[in-house]
Amino acid sequence: MTELPESKVDVLVIGAGPAGLMLALWLSRLGVKTRIVDKRTAKVYSGQADGFQVRSLEILDSFGIAERVWKEANRMLEVSFWNPDENGIIQRSAKSVNTIPGLSRFTESVLHQGRIEQFFIDGIRASYPSNETPLQVERMVIPTSLEIDEAAAEDSEAHPVTVTLRHLTEEEATPTQMLSNLNDGIFRSNLAEDDVAGILDRSKGREARDEVVRAKYVVGCDGAHSWTRKALGKEFEMKGESTDAIWGVMDIVPITDFPDIRFRTMIQNTAGALMIIPRENRMVRLYIQLKEVSAGGGRVDRSQITPEIIFKSAQRIFSPYKLEYHYCDWWTAYQIGQRTGDHFSKLNRVFLAGDAVHTHSPKAGQGMNISMQDSYNLGWKIGLACKNILPRDVLSTYELERKKIAKDLIAFDGKFSKLFTGAPPKDIQSETGVSDDVFQKAFHTSRMFTTGVGVNYQPTVLVAKEADPDPETEDDSPNTLTKSTAKSTQSLATNCKLGQRFPSYKVIRQSDARLWELHHKLPSNGRFRLVVFGGDISQPTQRDSVNALGAWLSSYLPKLPTIGLCPASDPHSGQIKFKTDADPSIVDVVLVHSAPRDEVDLLRDVHEAYHPFDSKLGWDYDKVFSDGKTFYEEPERAYEKYGIDSGKGAVVGLRPDGYVGLVTPVGHDGAEQIQRWFDGIFQRS
Amino acid sequence: MTELPESKVDVLVIGAGPAGLMLALWLSRLGVKTRIVDKRTAKVYSGQADGFQVRSLEILDSFGIAERVWKEANRMLEVSFWNPDENGIIQRSAKSVNTIPGLSRFTESVLHQGRIEQFFIDGIRASYPSNETPLQVERMVIPTSLEIDEAAAEDSEAHPVTVTLRHLTEEEATPTQMLSNLNDGIFRSNLAEDDVAGILDRSKGREARDEVVRAKYVVGCDGAHSWTRKALGKEFEMKGESTDAIWGVMDIVPITDFPDIRFRTMIQNTAGALMIIPRENRMVRLYIQLKEVSAGGGRVDRSQITPEIIFKSAQRIFSPYKLEYHYCDWWTAYQIGQRTGDHFSKLNRVFLAGDAVHTHSPKAGQGMNISMQDSYNLGWKIGLACKNILPRDVLSTYELERKKIAKDLIAFDGKFSKLFTGAPPKDIQSETGVSDDVFQKAFHTSRMFTTGVGVNYQPTVLVAKEADPDPETEDDSPNTLTKSTAKSTQSLATNCKLGQRFPSYKVIRQSDARLWELHHKLPSNGRFRLVVFGGDISQPTQRDSVNALGAWLSSYLPKLPTIGLCPASDPHSGQIKFKTDADPSIVDVVLVHSAPRDEVDLLRDVHEAYHPFDSKLGWDYDKVFSDGKTFYEEPERAYEKYGIDSGKGAVVGLRPDGYVGLVTPVGHDGAEQIQRWFDGIFQRS
Repeated sequence: MTELPESKVDVLVIGAGPAGLMLALWLSRLGVKTRIVDKRTAKVYSGQADGFQVRSLEILDSFGIAERVWKEANRMLEVSFWNPDENGIIQRSAKSVNTIPGLSRFTESVLHQGRIEQFFIDGIRASYPSNETPLQVERMVIPTSLEIDEAAAEDSEAHPVTVTLRHLTEEEATPTQMLSNLNDGIFRSNLAEDDVAGILDRSKGREARDEVVRAKYVVGCDGAHSWTRKALGKEFEMKGESTDAIWGVMDIVPITDFPDIRFRTMIQNTAGALMIIPRENRMVRLYIQLKEVSAGGGRVDRSQITPEIIFKSAQRIFSPYKLEYHYCDWWTAYQIGQRTGDHFSKLNRVFLAGDAVHTHSPKAGQGMNISMQDSYNLGWKIGLACKNILPRDVLSTYELERKKIAKDLIAFDGKFSKLFTGAPPKDIQSETGVSDDVFQKAFHTSRMFTTGVGVNYQPTVLVAKEADPDPETEDDSPNTLTKSTAKSTQSLATNCKLGQRFPSYKVIRQSDARLWELHHKLPSNGRFRLVVFGGDISQPTQRDSVNALGAWLSSYLPKLPTIGLCPASDPHSGQIKFKTDADPSIVDVVLVHSAPRDEVDLLRDVHEAYHPFDSKLGWDYDKVFSDGKTFYEEPERAYEKYGIDSGKGAVVGLRPDGYVGLVTPVGHDGAEQIQRWFDGIFQRS
Repeated sequence: MTELPESKVDVLVIGAGPAGLMLALWLSRLGVKTRIVDKRTAKVYSGQADGFQVRSLEILDSFGIAERVWKEANRMLEVSFWNPDENGIIQRSAKSVNTIPGLSRFTESVLHQGRIEQFFIDGIRASYPSNETPLQVERMVIPTSLEIDEAAAEDSEAHPVTVTLRHLTEEEATPTQMLSNLNDGIFRSNLAEDDVAGILDRSKGREARDEVVRAKYVVGCDGAHSWTRKALGKEFEMKGESTDAIWGVMDIVPITDFPDIRFRTMIQNTAGALMIIPRENRMVRLYIQLKEVSAGGGRVDRSQITPEIIFKSAQRIFSPYKLEYHYCDWWTAYQIGQRTGDHFSKLNRVFLAGDAVHTHSPKAGQGMNISMQDSYNLGWKIGLACKNILPRDVLSTYELERKKIAKDLIAFDGKFSKLFTGAPPKDIQSETGVSDDVFQKAFHTSRMFTTGVGVNYQPTVLVAKEADPDPETEDDSPNTLTKSTAKSTQSLATNCKLGQRFPSYKVIRQSDARLWELHHKLPSNGRFRLVVFGGDISQPTQRDSVNALGAWLSSYLPKLPTIGLCPASDPHSGQIKFKTDADPSIVDVVLVHSAPRDEVDLLRDVHEAYHPFDSKLGWDYDKVFSDGKTFYEEPERAYEKYGIDSGKGAVVGLRPDGYVGLVTPVGHDGAEQIQRWFDGIFQRS
């Protein structure tokens, strides 16, 4: 037998669904040598996951790839609840807001998984200069063995994970195209335009071959039946339970006289429960309780389930309204179950993300979102570790931070599913009212969680805070990671909550009066941020404080690592034509003041730390912003919304994923806390 | 000598700059057989036209191609005026708004012509289904002869224009790449990413060949030195005058301590005048008066002008502020002159558009805009004439409508340029103040014209109005075209001005509560529109009126022509997956009511004319909108902004280019006027 070909890579990603693609996108932006393999012959073209929660859209936007989702997706703005009246006829019992207003510039939206996979692939391509070959998904490739050289696990130069990959023939790969546990998809002919290339390009008639890859890190994003998880051993098995409830799912273009067909709607009829998710392209997704199919304490007999059975159930629940369809895009069925694992990583060398470590029911639109957010949490940590900017032990924060989310998700989903399935509505109005009221209340209190905005990470070197006193957010596994020695002052910025995502409000660019979402000036490019809310710098004392901090930053920041950025570093202003030679610091500084804009002269009044000079490009006019008036829009009052005093301001420290890690004053003490925070992250030996 | 190969085409477009590409885009969207040829080897990559006025952005948005301009362009929000103080030192004398707030959702923006040419090309490609070859620009092709068979000019089935085309070798075509009258461009190395393909793909080493094309229509969009214009004969020559003033233009990345470098700025220093246009990619464009170069009553000696001379003038005008640069992207120089022609068309078979019929100075950022708007006016008329939907005499409205704009432009430019060049600032503050004040006033009063929103078309069959009583908008050449027999009632919709573009405000979709810019529901797809402002349809009397109109429309509209639309018919919601078999009417109907949204049930309360049924796709939920409250944004008060009574409403008739052609009541008389308007357009024999 001949030796297999061998190669090295920094990161090997197994699985090219949303979790794997998010990771690949991060690593592309950071310029980390990566491969991503997938067993499927092509990306998904219809059906599957479809709900985009607002935090996911913010994250996609931080890479500049949310625009197309936001344009093509259907937005779900209001939610409607229907229950039987005293005669057993369904009627609308309530209609209310679906996403908490003011929480984000986005609202919950729906678009099928294939489109977002395409946008990820385009976003990865945009990370590379035109003279380099971009990272591409290697399809029809499966891992067949995985080993970790435990002795080399803590050597930052080592490639201790060895994986054997098998490149399948098309015949071998085709069965894996069966995407769900059931036969799925009955109409597939109308592919979106830019999907076609993916199908045509896939290689034909190639021969199977094996190769060995030695990686610094391997991440299994390979779904509920994760090969990677199995390869890591028994202690990685997921645990949880299944209920007997069976649900059908159909994506159809409905022909119906039901009035709320374009709203997210929950119907609880005597014939069963149903949820309407209105989608793009005149379609709706229906989640339909299948009362006549039962798992009977075990796994359901799949042969019982056909689209006809599912649709007849839907018609009964819609009654007396009519429901027909001509086009069906996709259908499937599932048994509700919730499972998660105890371990998200082995030796901080092999990681699991997404469905590989948590599975649950799809109705709350969480799956793809939590999965993408897992690898969004992991990507910059692995990337900066590969570049020797972050010490390896920071990688432990991945499991700490994301296991808590997975457990919250499982708990939430169990409660939500039971509530939905388990409360058969009564046929007397008064009794229905109660049950319906409970359901609505549960729905609304869950919105902070389901939007993804409620995520609250624990105290570590990355988040300088005390353990959260609120028992609801407390962890059930002990947090033994090293804490930051910096001390935050949360009261200085009451809506920039430590451990939570920094919100976005509009601020005015000092140099040209253009309004910007502050998020658009904080793209995902691997850099930590100091957002210096400088307060009213038209007041000399305050201006002196801000400039003293600027002077200190000018001497301190050069002691921290630098980061080589790739071309797509300003995803919200198009392409970068002229390049600076300077290698940017790992810490980016942005100033947002509250003084009247016309009383500030950028070059004269503000320290150069806030408008750095480049010998070829001149001063940077894109780092100083104001909270005030323009000719074109009502004032945003950003200071008020961030919960910051407009006189004295505050400094907010952000991790590369936009989570708040430090809140500290503008003055001398602030500089000390900033130094402690960054030294605690970068300078440990 | 062998016979030349011959072929037929509906429309031949000569020139693939913004005017030609706009025309090609229109014709692609309408499914009209078109060819477009250009003498250049590739599209423009830097420099040239760069200013986007708000009306142009609205037009691009109506094809779904404004998003990328809006993202990549620099927005000019405020304008700054600098003059010498009593010591002769320049100081800021005023800073004010650059685009009238509330006029449009867009503001004036700057992006180089090469990008917009790329977006046009992408927009044309998106007009075709994936299994068809899209219209492509045929480069390195020039016309060498043009003849019109005058006897066949009025035969709607004829192809009376014969053009011989020469396909150049690369050697022949290369000199035409010299884009301006002077050597231009000294740095061209940093092309934007998606520009590269255009260069690589151009054919190499091909042989010259000739062919004969027989076209229904030919449009010359071939610039100031238009071959087409010359081919049409002496009476098409442009007339006008040149001044002695010479201006230099440079696109640089400035290194300067001048405080307003990122604002649009007019500097009038004792050393001369200069205008700053801040642009994308950290660049600014400087328009610099060259006092030491003079045309001396004739044409300037071009060899005098170098980038060094231009830049030294700029430095003197900037003094005492410093100005340096490392990167220069492009430069040129020009002599101010204004010219236009008397005829825009020959026999309504050959047309001229853009610089081919009007040239002027570039400083007001009008050139590309007026050019694109010329062919935006012409495209749907030619397209619908080719499809035998519009009678040929409607084509006469092109010259009537656009010649007036060209004359206004020339007059405006003469005044604006003279004002800018001719008023040397005094070195005494009080005297400067006066001259500066005059300048600022002229600048601001010109904004309605320069934004393109002030355009006001004359009474014809397309615009049912009386001749405008305002002498400022009156025409100097007599308008002899047939008038509509319909009678508008302007007072019913005071801000939907007859002959002007219909403005856009946000309305709420009845079916799902989503806010939409009303423009986004009126894309450029060749259809006329009736926007039925139905008023308060929660009131039975008003609802009955609206539904009676709906019933009448259901019987009247089927008598009008239908229009086959291409796939990209909803550019603001992504791709269309499921298709209706119905062939849509030339008239699209949209209902905007002012009743509380929750008091209206779309299917129950509103006539099916406003939510047409399709046997495969069910009811259309995208045609009824409301002006009221949502959970997410402050009320827009669209009725108030459109100047329409929220009780009784109004019907506004729109041409396919979005200009208001009819304003009439919702009731019985409205139906009569609608019938007169459309019959006058479509049913003449």
